[in-house]
Amino acid sequence: MLDALARIGADPPGITRHAFDDRENAAHALAIAEAEHLGLDITRDAATNLYLTWPGADRSAPRTLLGSHFDTVRHGGNFDGAAGVVAALAAVSALKAEGFAPRADITIAAFRCEEAVWFGLGLIGSRAALGILPPDALDRRRADTGLTLAQHIARCGGDPAALAPGTRLLPHGPIRCFLEAHIEQAPSLLEAGVPIGICTGIPGNIRHAAIRITGEDAHVGLPRRFRRDAALAGADLFTALDALWAEEEEAGRAMAFTIGRFHTDTTKHELTVVAGDFTLSLDLRAYGGAHLAALEQSLHAIVATVAARRGVAIDLGPRNAAPVGPCDPALQAALAAAAARGGVATMPLGSPASHDAANFAAQGIPTGLLLIRNANGSHNPHEAMDTADLMAAAATFAAVLRDTA
Amino acid sequence: MLDALARIGADPPGITRHAFDDRENAAHALAIAEAEHLGLDITRDAATNLYLTWPGADRSAPRTLLGSHFDTVRHGGNFDGAAGVVAALAAVSALKAEGFAPRADITIAAFRCEEAVWFGLGLIGSRAALGILPPDALDRRRADTGLTLAQHIARCGGDPAALAPGTRLLPHGPIRCFLEAHIEQAPSLLEAGVPIGICTGIPGNIRHAAIRITGEDAHVGLPRRFRRDAALAGADLFTALDALWAEEEEAGRAMAFTIGRFHTDTTKHELTVVAGDFTLSLDLRAYGGAHLAALEQSLHAIVATVAARRGVAIDLGPRNAAPVGPCDPALQAALAAAAARGGVATMPLGSPASHDAANFAAQGIPTGLLLIRNANGSHNPHEAMDTADLMAAAATFAAVLRDTA
Repeated sequence: MLDALARIGADPPGITRHAFDDRENAAHALAIAEAEHLGLDITRDAATNLYLTWPGADRSAPRTLLGSHFDTVRHGGNFDGAAGVVAALAAVSALKAEGFAPRADITIAAFRCEEAVWFGLGLIGSRAALGILPPDALDRRRADTGLTLAQHIARCGGDPAALAPGTRLLPHGPIRCFLEAHIEQAPSLLEAGVPIGICTGIPGNIRHAAIRITGEDAHVGLPRRFRRDAALAGADLFTALDALWAEEEEAGRAMAFTIGRFHTDTTKHELTVVAGDFTLSLDLRAYGGAHLAALEQSLHAIVATVAARRGVAIDLGPRNAAPVGPCDPALQAALAAAAARGGVATMPLGSPASHDAANFAAQGIPTGLLLIRNANGSHNPHEAMDTADLMAAAATFAAVLRDTA
Repeated sequence: MLDALARIGADPPGITRHAFDDRENAAHALAIAEAEHLGLDITRDAATNLYLTWPGADRSAPRTLLGSHFDTVRHGGNFDGAAGVVAALAAVSALKAEGFAPRADITIAAFRCEEAVWFGLGLIGSRAALGILPPDALDRRRADTGLTLAQHIARCGGDPAALAPGTRLLPHGPIRCFLEAHIEQAPSLLEAGVPIGICTGIPGNIRHAAIRITGEDAHVGLPRRFRRDAALAGADLFTALDALWAEEEEAGRAMAFTIGRFHTDTTKHELTVVAGDFTLSLDLRAYGGAHLAALEQSLHAIVATVAARRGVAIDLGPRNAAPVGPCDPALQAALAAAAARGGVATMPLGSPASHDAANFAAQGIPTGLLLIRNANGSHNPHEAMDTADLMAAAATFAAVLRDTA
């Protein structure tokens, strides 16, 4: 299945499975074929998320949900997202093969558009499934096609009009828990020689996709004291945030920030012109709501200092936020115990990255997340997960399902 | 003439007179019409620089050259360059009107393509006129048209094959001096309330048009210790150079640097991807050759430090250099005295920007440069020179020509 997904996404030098488009649809079709093979019920919600359900003896008993996403960033890797759906299918396949009969429903979910690159907002499918999509989300345009999210959902056969805030699209009935497996996006497990991390928490984030700095275009001949250099102000902002991160890390307070877009106006910048315009993106994340709020205050203080020092205006622009997602302690213990019984070494690990699981955790649904050892980070063509480690995650899920579903 | 030049270059929100193209040609045509009106000899060299000559009684006596350029950056202002040609024409016009008869030739030059934005190399016309064009210059492509410099020269009716290193294209015979007037590109004169600056020297520069920083694309989830963030390395480089400039300024050593292009790869950068690639331009300048060499050593040390700290590779790429251009002390004194006699206040002033005059100075030709008070810098649509200040420069040139030509 992973090989077939790689063929679907082939886009040298990496893998691209565009959200709400042909390649994500092809991945869904692949999962559907597998579900048919396993005899699962196949449904889709109004946001075109896919649900593959193994009905339990008691259809009203609390359902276990497992899943992740199939979309990737552009020229990303094959495993970020897809590994989680494959692990869930492998767990169900193993339980089917051994003749297990679930008491309650087990549903595998493939959520749409987890990656923020497509519409400037991440976790779209799982937000929609939980009824927590921001009000403006349907009008957002995909960066490349220029079509709105509503248009993309409609093109995939969904019903954007049915996506109302507060309306859950998930399969009916109570939910026992949500489980996700995801490749680790850092080499911590590799460094520790441990195949599986038991996630202790998923950070919330604050995002400004397009911070604009406005100074004044000027000639190379302008002395330093007269300059209002927007690019230099951007550099100040970046290095000040990096210093903040170093301090927080020193103090043992886990956080991260990423400035992925950081650029002068490429339609007009010149070798001999001091840049009057600069644009950057910011993703700021932490594991506690209060910590994140404090970091946002620090951000605002840094912005004010840099603007004053460099004589520029800094407009943070639109703000998006995702809440902190605490992982359920009982599920952490159950996952660790199940892994240990199967001879799989695990370690507790924070997930600096956000995942669909974060939305479930933030909604108060008990959530467990397994992180799978991975060599080269993610969002790049060099993601390198060992299939044996993926199977260890699947076996751990199977063991937990055997105990609880 | 300035109004007509503004109409030729009109390109909202500014003025664009593309080098070696229709608009620069139209400016040349305007100067030719003025020269015909004044009865000057009109010639062009193989690089299509324009020379307007008032023959002296002794054609073999050392010639005085005055001039500047007509090309602009994109969406620049009307005065950077053009003011110098207009000042020279006004000086000759005034001398003609009063019945002055020069002993030696006076030649007004309009040099092609002074701005570095077109071919990634500045001062092209005056370099060609002096036979000091770099060997690769003719093969450089203009950023927008994609045509080579040789093709552009040929399209303007020139003969690129005749541009050999060491071959001067200037009008024959000895040169007494080169004089240029140029708007100041900073508000120093405005601040001081003085209309004219007597330039004390023109800095040499070292330019790297495309410095490439290579780190590794990575997910937002990658912890700080594993990151190889190319954009953060760019920010470090920028702030380190700014700190160097502040130190040098504190120590009274005039210099400047400009990073006009400073950007992530806009075809692939994303909100949630640590940037593995970053590009910047650098223009570094100082008034003394030894000082410039020392600054280049500091640059290399900073680059090495940043590369090691951030785990990135920094490739400085192609290097261009322009030599330091010392202004002739006797000409400085003569210009100041002539201005004072005309009731025009002046002050000595370094020119942090490079000019065609720098090439003449570097070739050992006595060079004088007048800087004209200007409100809003240059290379932007808001250049604001008072015509009375331009006329003060022209009157100063006329007075010096009356004494020496």
